[in-house]
Amino acid sequence: MPIPRLNCDVGESFGAWKMGRDADVMPYIDCANIACGFHAGDPDVMRRTVGYAVANEVLIGAHPGYPDLVGFGRRSLAVSPSEAENLLLYQIGALDGVCRAEGTRVGYVKPHGALYNDMATNMELLRATMRAVKAYDESLPLLVMSTADTAGVRALAEEEGVSLWFEVFADRAYDGEGRLVSRREPDAVHHDEDTIVGQAVTLARGEALTARDGTKLVLPADTLCVHGDNESSVAAVRAIREAFDQLEGA
Amino acid sequence: MPIPRLNCDVGESFGAWKMGRDADVMPYIDCANIACGFHAGDPDVMRRTVGYAVANEVLIGAHPGYPDLVGFGRRSLAVSPSEAENLLLYQIGALDGVCRAEGTRVGYVKPHGALYNDMATNMELLRATMRAVKAYDESLPLLVMSTADTAGVRALAEEEGVSLWFEVFADRAYDGEGRLVSRREPDAVHHDEDTIVGQAVTLARGEALTARDGTKLVLPADTLCVHGDNESSVAAVRAIREAFDQLEGA
Amino acid sequence: MPIPRLNCDVGESFGAWKMGRDADVMPYIDCANIACGFHAGDPDVMRRTVGYAVANEVLIGAHPGYPDLVGFGRRSLAVSPSEAENLLLYQIGALDGVCRAEGTRVGYVKPHGALYNDMATNMELLRATMRAVKAYDESLPLLVMSTADTAGVRALAEEEGVSLWFEVFADRAYDGEGRLVSRREPDAVHHDEDTIVGQAVTLARGEALTARDGTKLVLPADTLCVHGDNESSVAAVRAIREAFDQLEGA
Amino acid sequence: MPIPRLNCDVGESFGAWKMGRDADVMPYIDCANIACGFHAGDPDVMRRTVGYAVANEVLIGAHPGYPDLVGFGRRSLAVSPSEAENLLLYQIGALDGVCRAEGTRVGYVKPHGALYNDMATNMELLRATMRAVKAYDESLPLLVMSTADTAGVRALAEEEGVSLWFEVFADRAYDGEGRLVSRREPDAVHHDEDTIVGQAVTLARGEALTARDGTKLVLPADTLCVHGDNESSVAAVRAIREAFDQLEGA
Repeated sequence: MPIPRLNCDVGESFGAWKMGRDADVMPYIDCANIACGFHAGDPDVMRRTVGYAVANEVLIGAHPGYPDLVGFGRRSLAVSPSEAENLLLYQIGALDGVCRAEGTRVGYVKPHGALYNDMATNMELLRATMRAVKAYDESLPLLVMSTADTAGVRALAEEEGVSLWFEVFADRAYDGEGRLVSRREPDAVHHDEDTIVGQAVTLARGEALTARDGTKLVLPADTLCVHGDNESSVAAVRAIREAFDQLEGA
Repeated sequence: MPIPRLNCDVGESFGAWKMGRDADVMPYIDCANIACGFHAGDPDVMRRTVGYAVANEVLIGAHPGYPDLVGFGRRSLAVSPSEAENLLLYQIGALDGVCRAEGTRVGYVKPHGALYNDMATNMELLRATMRAVKAYDESLPLLVMSTADTAGVRALAEEEGVSLWFEVFADRAYDGEGRLVSRREPDAVHHDEDTIVGQAVTLARGEALTARDGTKLVLPADTLCVHGDNESSVAAVRAIREAFDQLEGA
Repeated sequence: MPIPRLNCDVGESFGAWKMGRDADVMPYIDCANIACGFHAGDPDVMRRTVGYAVANEVLIGAHPGYPDLVGFGRRSLAVSPSEAENLLLYQIGALDGVCRAEGTRVGYVKPHGALYNDMATNMELLRATMRAVKAYDESLPLLVMSTADTAGVRALAEEEGVSLWFEVFADRAYDGEGRLVSRREPDAVHHDEDTIVGQAVTLARGEALTARDGTKLVLPADTLCVHGDNESSVAAVRAIREAFDQLEGA
Repeated sequence: MPIPRLNCDVGESFGAWKMGRDADVMPYIDCANIACGFHAGDPDVMRRTVGYAVANEVLIGAHPGYPDLVGFGRRSLAVSPSEAENLLLYQIGALDGVCRAEGTRVGYVKPHGALYNDMATNMELLRATMRAVKAYDESLPLLVMSTADTAGVRALAEEEGVSLWFEVFADRAYDGEGRLVSRREPDAVHHDEDTIVGQAVTLARGEALTARDGTKLVLPADTLCVHGDNESSVAAVRAIREAFDQLEGA
């Protein structure tokens, strides 16, 4: 079983506003989810971030979101499926345009924030997302949330001709259906580095995770989401990377 | 001497706001300059407009502008050359992303409004534009304004490795240097259809145009800009097309 | 019983894009709902529209919406109550700022589009709206949709210290609860001028309207919403105005 | 001679992006220039910042800018005088709307960034600014840059009926005409706290400053601009406040 790729949201600065420790986290990740200007990022930030990714040999992913800068793409917006398809095409293309100037190209797509969450519950929105990715470049994988039962999502992807990467989280508690416990609930987010690394290794080995209700979960884990917001999250990424390097060496 | 291609700004609607008679003018033009969302256009308008162009076998050009929706990209914005380069890459890529969903690709680049005008007087901005086009796809021509002396622009394009299409206007008066007379001056714009068609034919034949001060101007004319704003401008485009068809038949 | 004031959405142009027949409809209305820049309108359009309203002695209302130009404020956006309160304060104040330059002031508040609809089903959003209006100027009425049972909304308004104007529609079918039939259903919108004027007069007289399911509805009707989108809607406004003038004369 | 009021740009965060140490600097300043949403700030940030100012008994000023979030209002935009007037009215009103919810009102106006600089060289833009302030509330002072010769600006203000506050800088070198030396030149910005405090005290006492070319400058100094960007700038503000407290006690 392959070790999950570490993916991280980067390029979330905007204009004069800085966010994230992109340069610090880049050396430890495999995949850089780069914001495409609708919820964060701007052409200059994108260019700079693509440059960092190239310098660190990190695969670049488009990280498109709802058009909501002030809400950072975290608020649901009632777009139609065709609106979703088009705003995804626009953002993927925009990042790919910037990539060309740095001698690289977009390698996958991971929708951001509320769009990512809405896709997980609205099949028409998920289908629209798949159509955008397929139309843009059918070789690009689409990242979707891993759950205990991925049959429906896999069937839709097959139908639409898109390949999937299932994404898991090391710092979040799961419920019995393999969905993330809402951040509004207590203990939804793990802050202890040992717990985070432990969950990452369990997922990477394909072993069962214990959900909050005691259910044993085996989650497909093509990629693991990590964070570069602050010093402690970057330290956790580094620790996960070291643990994964040991797994691969074993 | 090849007949100049007719190019027209289209896709300038935005959200609920409609602008231009895109469907009416498409049958008569060769090249559709499609707004890329910064000064006009949005992902849905772009998708629809690309569809019209494909249906009419019209070549699609990216028509990027300054980020100024409320000013329609007509107000100069003091961007640095690197900011210009990046906002061009972003917009060209965005349109190309939308194009893919309609089975086509961007075929050339024509900057819009104040950006187009500023490029004509600011060589560093022009160089930045060339770099964006070259980095995006070196086979794409860049449209620039034709003037009496294009040596400097040609030399820069050679240096940057970009091919140029020189653009002329049938409905505008020229000054002795082959520059457009400012719209703020009287008689800067021709409204009479016969005058417009006459100037188009003169330019297409490579014959000398009479500038406002009496100078004889021979302008390189790879492409001629036409307008689809209203009924009379569409009628003029149709008349120019018919005149050009006769020239080609001759 | 006082005749309902005629209110109309105006000032919905944006930058170079024109929308609505503001100048045509102004002479027949009492209240101008002026877009405040988040879903439509810009400072120049607002200034011009306020000028028209003043010239026609029409009361000016702030018509704030979700921050979604491309969606014209018609798509729900998951804002929190405090975000709603602040974006309302911002927009009301912005229009009031423009009003001062034309010697007038905002006279009431009518939220737009999806925000108006969401307020009707989300009591916390309605409360936030009331708080914004109260904080801005407690003498300003807030327009809310009239329904068969307004007790809950009236109680909340009393609690928050805001006065209400209940709004009715002459061109829309009502269901048995006094709510508008969704536009997606057949016969939701009346297009026949006689039907529209007839419904307006029924509402103005305080007589019962027949809902689609046959229920007899008596709706509070402080103000009636009319439209200035096109020639036929402007004609309908004029016909309603004439009918109301006769009622008042009677 | 009254001690200059200390004014500081605050409320420059935007959505999820934080900027400036507003809470740290508030206790030491007299006047808070609050961004109004066009170059920085959003309704929630504005509400929070107004709350801080009220808690610290700091006078609130509108700090309107060009509509250029990505450029932070630092890039000139070729607006017409009437566009400038309207975008100022809009922004002043918007902040005043938010102020009402915190029981306060806008007390003065200081344009931001490129707009502030452009006003100093474009008299029609300056006049438009004055008209906006006058129309909004003729009792509000307008902050303008102090120079060696303020006669022209004073005459225009008299003509337009606006009162002025001349603004000086403690951390910037002046040229012989009493204009700020461009940041692109060496030694344009003072970083040493003693130098900064010394220049502040000289200005506060109405004594002559030595310009870079040796000229002796006496600058009108109604208010002094300070910065809350980082720890050292906040420390400098505190030191200036202490020095001014001693001056007042003397």
